[in-house]
Amino acid sequence: MERCLVIGSGCAGLTAGIYAARSGLDPLIISGLLPGGQLTMTTEVENFPGFPSPVQGQQLMDAMRKQGERLGVRFVNDLAEEVNFKKHPFSVRLAGGSEIAAQAVIVATGAAARWLGLGSEQRLRGKGVSACATCDGFFFKGKDVLVIGGGDTALEEACFLTKFASSVAVVHRRGKFRATSALVEKAGQNKKIRFIFDCVAEEVLGRETVEGVRLKNVASGAVQSVKCEGLFVAIGHEPATSFLKGQLALDEQGYILVKPAGFVVTDTPGVFAAGDCADHRYRQAVTASAFGSMAAIEAGKWLENKGFV
Amino acid sequence: MERCLVIGSGCAGLTAGIYAARSGLDPLIISGLLPGGQLTMTTEVENFPGFPSPVQGQQLMDAMRKQGERLGVRFVNDLAEEVNFKKHPFSVRLAGGSEIAAQAVIVATGAAARWLGLGSEQRLRGKGVSACATCDGFFFKGKDVLVIGGGDTALEEACFLTKFASSVAVVHRRGKFRATSALVEKAGQNKKIRFIFDCVAEEVLGRETVEGVRLKNVASGAVQSVKCEGLFVAIGHEPATSFLKGQLALDEQGYILVKPAGFVVTDTPGVFAAGDCADHRYRQAVTASAFGSMAAIEAGKWLENKGFV
Repeated sequence: MERCLVIGSGCAGLTAGIYAARSGLDPLIISGLLPGGQLTMTTEVENFPGFPSPVQGQQLMDAMRKQGERLGVRFVNDLAEEVNFKKHPFSVRLAGGSEIAAQAVIVATGAAARWLGLGSEQRLRGKGVSACATCDGFFFKGKDVLVIGGGDTALEEACFLTKFASSVAVVHRRGKFRATSALVEKAGQNKKIRFIFDCVAEEVLGRETVEGVRLKNVASGAVQSVKCEGLFVAIGHEPATSFLKGQLALDEQGYILVKPAGFVVTDTPGVFAAGDCADHRYRQAVTASAFGSMAAIEAGKWLENKGFV
Repeated sequence: MERCLVIGSGCAGLTAGIYAARSGLDPLIISGLLPGGQLTMTTEVENFPGFPSPVQGQQLMDAMRKQGERLGVRFVNDLAEEVNFKKHPFSVRLAGGSEIAAQAVIVATGAAARWLGLGSEQRLRGKGVSACATCDGFFFKGKDVLVIGGGDTALEEACFLTKFASSVAVVHRRGKFRATSALVEKAGQNKKIRFIFDCVAEEVLGRETVEGVRLKNVASGAVQSVKCEGLFVAIGHEPATSFLKGQLALDEQGYILVKPAGFVVTDTPGVFAAGDCADHRYRQAVTASAFGSMAAIEAGKWLENKGFV
């Protein structure tokens, strides 16, 4: 029987582990599909506090994992496939077949950006292709960038990027944005922003770094290449929560619902949620870490109040 | 006219600065009374994610400041003494006499633990004397510790410390705790915990590290020395918000009130709060940093929505 089981090993899961270990909860972390989480897919991180020089995402996550190991965090390199949060102790079934019982669970499974699915896009990730303007916009001072998407996030990112970029082209596959009209109007009034409708990206151009994007008009079939040094894919995120359906309250997009003032408190006492699986507003490495620490603190208090520790 | 003014340079203020700089907001940080904040008063930090080996508090804060400077954050080494948030642009008067106008303000002035006020206590801080069981309890495995205080926090910390310490003595100056009765009962049932009533600490004993505490009975005047290797002072915290009275909504303890779901949103549009000046629940370095990043993100959105950037 585990006292404190953490599902996921990105910033949220590892920081939850670090805090839980230092609270004497002897946590076990299920590493998941992508040990280290989304940050392992990025290159330079320069907004994680405490690092005067940019740090590689993979390096930061290796450091966090080592920190956890040093403090006694245990890891199982497997994937949570099914949970039963309807009876206590909770149970989690792993892809490898084993079943783990736990008194408290911290869900920190993260989210994944949706990508276009192009080989060239994948090859150039971190080399001009990004899914986070807040994280990477700063790297595109004086450059031309292209944003793909038609929702609020796409237009917000486009406006944000005009602070750095010389020009921002927003490419949408339909003839009209889904975004709220005020946002469309605002982006439309920004002289740095232009809209390209009815187009999809066929290929990201460039060998070592992004040099442009080849677009195809879905109505006419016409193909054009647009020069740019940055491509921001803003077509949404997918929280890794499908295995939780029916077990935890989720919102319509699949994010775990947490209590407004509780930050990490789910609808099931003893189950806590931290990081991008519950947060679609901030999605930062440092915020995920902080939610992980909060979840461990709350789990410790809950276990203590219930007399489990 | 500043676009984004940050008051305070602890984890929250510096991370707000880092994020604001990377969002093109060209922030100015007012360093305050204690540049680097509370962490500069501690020794080893082993729960800040990303550091496999313990890092010195001062060193971590120096790193964060350098990171901010590299990204273009400007600093003024002065203290905010008075604010006017009742009209926009906001204004902040510094102890040095100058006045700064700003379109958005992030308050990150932190809090200070209340101390007993003994010279020996100050000399042994970080050498056995602590004000945070969550942070430092782990360092007292198998040791005897003493907690001073009579409220909920004191008894919570005492219970928490029993996971590591061999024994925990709770010293209170009155004959009865202020803490909730359930907590008193729980602590009373814990075999590792004993209560010492009607006593105050006269001196912390030990040259290089804590070796004990000399207590005086306030009723009888009798003096006794209690051996211990750790002293946790749990008599409360004081948010550094007195200069904000009448300008921002504060709770009865002086913490800045933030909207439940907004985390960093105060009652005054354009003024945001981050870290221990608004958070009395978690008070961690990483949570303060995260709230700082959130405040910068929200400030950026607000400035953009208002057409200021």
